[in-house]
This record gives sequence, structure tokens and C-alpha cells, in this order.
Amino acid sequence: MSSPTEVTSPTSPIGLHRVLEARGELATLPQAARRLDPRPEIWPDEVRLRVQTLNLDAASYRQLAEKHTAEGQVDGAAVRAEVLEIIGERGKMQNPVTGSGGMLIGTVDEVGPESTLGLEVGDRVATLVSLSLTPLAISDGLARWDGLSEQVPAEGHAILFGRSIAARLPDDLDPRLSLMVMDVCGAPALVARVVEEYAAQGTSPTVLVLGGAGKSGSLSLAAARRSGGGRLIGVVPTERERDVLTAAGLADEVVLADARSPLGLSGAVDAAGGPADVTVVCVDVPGCEQPAILSTAQGGTIIFFSMATNFAAAALGAEGVAADVRMLVGNGYVPGHAAYALELVRSEPAVRDLFESRLEPATPANGPVEDEPAGLSNSATTSSQFEEGSRA
Amino acid sequence: MSSPTEVTSPTSPIGLHRVLEARGELATLPQAARRLDPRPEIWPDEVRLRVQTLNLDAASYRQLAEKHTAEGQVDGAAVRAEVLEIIGERGKMQNPVTGSGGMLIGTVDEVGPESTLGLEVGDRVATLVSLSLTPLAISDGLARWDGLSEQVPAEGHAILFGRSIAARLPDDLDPRLSLMVMDVCGAPALVARVVEEYAAQGTSPTVLVLGGAGKSGSLSLAAARRSGGGRLIGVVPTERERDVLTAAGLADEVVLADARSPLGLSGAVDAAGGPADVTVVCVDVPGCEQPAILSTAQGGTIIFFSMATNFAAAALGAEGVAADVRMLVGNGYVPGHAAYALELVRSEPAVRDLFESRLEPATPANGPVEDEPAGLSNSATTSSQFEEGSRA
Repeated sequence: MSSPTEVTSPTSPIGLHRVLEARGELATLPQAARRLDPRPEIWPDEVRLRVQTLNLDAASYRQLAEKHTAEGQVDGAAVRAEVLEIIGERGKMQNPVTGSGGMLIGTVDEVGPESTLGLEVGDRVATLVSLSLTPLAISDGLARWDGLSEQVPAEGHAILFGRSIAARLPDDLDPRLSLMVMDVCGAPALVARVVEEYAAQGTSPTVLVLGGAGKSGSLSLAAARRSGGGRLIGVVPTERERDVLTAAGLADEVVLADARSPLGLSGAVDAAGGPADVTVVCVDVPGCEQPAILSTAQGGTIIFFSMATNFAAAALGAEGVAADVRMLVGNGYVPGHAAYALELVRSEPAVRDLFESRLEPATPANGPVEDEPAGLSNSATTSSQFEEGSRA
Repeated sequence: MSSPTEVTSPTSPIGLHRVLEARGELATLPQAARRLDPRPEIWPDEVRLRVQTLNLDAASYRQLAEKHTAEGQVDGAAVRAEVLEIIGERGKMQNPVTGSGGMLIGTVDEVGPESTLGLEVGDRVATLVSLSLTPLAISDGLARWDGLSEQVPAEGHAILFGRSIAARLPDDLDPRLSLMVMDVCGAPALVARVVEEYAAQGTSPTVLVLGGAGKSGSLSLAAARRSGGGRLIGVVPTERERDVLTAAGLADEVVLADARSPLGLSGAVDAAGGPADVTVVCVDVPGCEQPAILSTAQGGTIIFFSMATNFAAAALGAEGVAADVRMLVGNGYVPGHAAYALELVRSEPAVRDLFESRLEPATPANGPVEDEPAGLSNSATTSSQFEEGSRA
């Protein structure tokens, strides 16, 4: 059991003691910090991981790859060099342009005596907090990575704070599959909680999922079904996705509509048995706020998981049409969310099929811009155009 | 009873039939439209108002005044000319730079036979939907306005759609006071609804209001008290506001803290009896998301009324510290919100005093940037720096 040799600040469950360079006076949280202290010695409530794989988030990798592309070719060595440089300088993997990070897979190396994360030495885990706030050091120069994909084989160590989130990787699932599921696991957990509120009052709410064939969308549909949802309506942007979601059987109605069109969407949803009592927005393109509002019944609930959601557009959009709807910011953390999502994948073959179809390497889809299509053999290792629901 | 002479589209409760020029294929709602049809003839579910006063929103007026300022002097005639030009061109008062509008006061001139707004000819009303989506025509050239304040005496007409929102101006209150109250009336209504949910489960939640001395903040505190809130904590940014809010007695604890400082705020709130079960953000400056999250108990609720709220900062901020908090987008519409807020002002002398102190003309306060201070004799007719909770 090693102890920090020079503890200059008391331990903090959110990692304040590892902030080396704040950005301005107020920005003292690890995510906002310019530089973290990645020393391997742990404070009493921390956990140290031996890193196996970094999973850069899609937006970050895309930015790096585009920056280092010449004549249509990504210069993988240059991408690798820049990632190494970022980690070395910042003590964490946070893309300075996108601000985003990713997740990592590793093995528990040491557990502080005051840690409450429930981990044991040897556990293989995925971190569910962003790499952008996780102290990280690399020891192998990323020698095994060609710089050409988001999945980065790596050696080194990372630190989990007292209040971090990590989940054991299950033995029975492909780790890549587990990672994909964990990346969006906040969505089904929150959908289940909201639908259960309705069910507890004796109603079976109509649930509308925009982007129903995507990762967070398909899990949300499965969660809604299991939690007491009534009619389930999935909206997709293409005929291909319509066929995929219809075959999966996760929704009672599959609607082909543009989620950015207020009238197009609400009209199509009405025709499919809407408006919805609970609307779940899993489409990472701007402009879905007003369509979602118009597709939701008075007194209903909208859960925005899309990171493209505009706060003002939602607030003013509801007020402008006198819509008495409850609008929730899709918090990616709900206790037990990873276990719940993995259990959905295990027990719902249709969901598992959708996810597994993403694991097979194939040509990246050049589909429409508004959803990351499921079931289209996207490789999980390529940069998808819209990582809906992904928060890393 | 006049009828449209050339009805080219069926009536729509949200006013689609008056959109003349959409912006792009999807932007067909009145707020997004470049131009509306302000014809005085009404569709069967509409109401026509005779305009008395336009109340430009603070952001819009500030932009216009700054544009037409030379050598420190606002050219009021130029401001007036531009407002007239905007209304003439667009058929609504929507500042093309800020996108915002404001509200208006008028008298009901004609009520369509299918209107469900409950208005009668002769009623004096304020519109609670934005001018940016309200068909409007001016007939007096704004001759009585000097262009030097947000309150614009005007003659002309405006149209309310089937699903618009308007509220009768009470006879017993200064119309300027009523307008100020109605401008932020969504906040107390939603706070009351949320606190009542807790109270219905037999708990008296600790309620934290950031910006407790402001308009929406003071109303939120009063609403929390009345709805079964337990300990009420108001946060203010200056000693002056601390004294004002302390004297008002609306909070059990008044805390002087920077709402943008994660540690400063959460530490101060903890010392005052926090963390909160319900946190209400009424401070219109960026960067309050993470401090609000850290000041809220696990399982608690945060209501974001600030239009400076960043969706991603809220979603990622909660996830990054494993905060299981419910985060609500502060929808400015709750049925009965205007009547509820006016009743609070009538029955709570402390709230009324805070609002009335804003009515006395005085030098605009050059206070701190993070709240619109209450009780500092801001004139309601001057552009305040931060119109917290204002949505027009």
C-alpha cells in the first residue's frame, strides 16, 4: 500500500486534490482543469487501474484524424503523437478542441482503504466517467496503436476518485459490446425510472423514441417496454432503419420521419397513435426540441439525451406553444445504470442483435446525418457520424 | 365579425396559417418564420388585440440602443425607425440579431367564435407568448415613443392564436408591476409544483434559490414557502442584495456566494444547512451548472430557469461527479402561472416591496454581473443587465 509522498491538499471525492492547473479562478474541477496530477500513488479513497485500452470519443477522434489528414489519408503516426502529447502535457486525455475524452478499459491494480467503489484488485473494469477528468499516464508510447481507430491499445495507469464511476466488464459479453452498451447506459435507466413513475400511477404511457434504431434509442425502447410502457413508437430517418427496427420488434409502431420537422414529426406521431406521454430524444442533431414538444401530450415528459439539445430552444419552444410538458436534461448517471443496460442486452435478443451487428467490421455507412443507424454493420471501431447518447 | 377574405390554409392553434416566409424547409413555426401575416381579420380561433404598449425584451432593446449610440448618446429616433422597419417587414417584433421579442399590453378587440382563451372584448391583457411569434401591425408610427426605453407606447393591432397565452391585467396592481411579475411567472409556478411533489410524500424539502433577491428568485422563494418547503436558502452575489433579502425575510438563510464557483457555492450552502433537495437556478450567467449540481443532494432536483444554462454542461457535469439528480429545463409555461404569481405578490408584502422598489425611476445600478439585483431601485423601464427568468 503506497501513500502519496507529498499530499498538499486533503483528498476530495471529485478529485480536486489532483488539479494542478486550474483555468481561471473558478474552474477548479478536474474536467475544467488544464492539467491533472497523474502520480501513481493513490489517496486513501482512490483506485488505480492498469490501462488496457483507451476508447477515444467519436468527436475527439474525428477532430484529430481530420487535422492529420493529407490527400485523403489519415497520418496515423501523427495522430498517435498528438494523443501522446496531450496525455503527457495534461495528465489526462482531453482533446483541447472538442473538450471531450472517452472511456477506458483496465484492470484494478490497487484499491485505497477508504474507496467505496466496490472494486477489487484484478477486476476488469470500464470507466464510466470521461477521460477528460481521469488522471492518466502512458508508459508504452502507444506503440501498439496505429492511430487509425478510436480504440487505443495502451499501457499505463489511470486513477479513479472517491466518487468516480466504473463498472466491471462481464465475462459473458464481448468487451467491445459491453463498452458500447455502457457508453449509452444512462438512457435506458432514466427511461425506466420515468416510465415506472407513470406505471406506479396505474397508467401505461405511450412512449416515443426519436432515433429508435440507434444504440441509446433501442435500449430506451426495451427499457420502456420492460418498465410498463404502453404503445411504443420509434422514429427513424431512413427506410433501412425502418426495416431494421421493424424486424427487431422493439416498437409497436415504426415511423419514418424527419425529427427536425415540427409538423412532419408531430403529424406522423399522431398518425401512429400519439401524441406521446413520454418522449425520448436520442437523435444528435440540432433542432429536435420543438418537434419533440409538439409530439408530446399536455402533461407529458420529454427526456433529452441528445447532446445537440439547445436549452433555450427547449425552454422557449414549450412556452411559445403553451406546452405544459416536463423536460428533463438526460443525466447520464443513474445508480445501477450499467448493470441494467447490460441485463437488457442479455435478455432482449433484438437489442443484442442490433448491437452485435455493429461489431462486424464493414464499410462505414454514409447514411443520413441524423442518427447513427443501428444494424447497418457500422464498425464499432470507426468514427460514426453521430454518437447519439454518447457522453464521454 | 369579419372573416379572412382569402384563407389559404386551415387555421392552426400555433399559428402556422400566418407564416408567410419560412426559413428553410423545416422552419415553419411562427417564431422561426421570417415574416408573418398580420392582417387584422381573424380566423375563428383567434383573438385580435388593440395594442397599447410594447415591452421590448432587455436583450433586444440593448442591442438596438448600442447599435444606434454615437458619442455616448442613444439616437432614439434611429432606434424607433428600426423598430418600425422590423415590424413593417416581418409582421412581428423580432430583433433579427437577438432573435428575441418582448411582450405587449393591449385591449381585446375581437374574439373568434372558436377561441378557447377565455377572453372578452374590452379585457385589458398582457401577452405571455413572445412578440417574436405574435402577428403585429403598428398604425401610429410609434409617434409617442422617444426610442429611449424598452416600454413603447404604440397603436396598432396584434393577433393571438388558438394556443397563445394571455393574462388579464388586474385592476388592483400597477400595470408595470403586473408586467414584471408576468414576465417571470413560470418560475414560481414550477417551483410550487416540484415542492408540492415532495410535500405530498411527507417531506419538507430544503430549497436553494440561486439569485434569491431577483425577480424570479424572490417569487420562487415565496412559492417554495407556500408549497411546503422546509429550510429555504437564498444565494446572492453582493452585500447589498444580502441585506435586501435578509430584510425581506423570504429565506431562512441568506448566503453571500459566487454561484459560478463549484466549491465556493457548495461549501457555503453546506454551511447554511445544505445540500438542497430542490435547487432553483435564477442567475443568468454561464457556469452555474456544476455549482448547482454540487450543492444538490443525491436524489434531488435542479430547476434551471436561467437562459444562460448550457445543456451539455448540465448533463456532463452531473455524470462527471456521479450525481443522481433530476434536472428540469425551466419551462416558462405552467397552467395558471400568471394568476399564481400575481397572487403571491398580492399576499406576500416582502415580495411586493421587492418588485415595487424596481418601479421607482433611478440611476441604473452598475452592480455585479451575475444577477439583476432586486430592491435596488432599478427602473423597470431601463435595460437591466441580466433579466433573469425573462423569456420574451
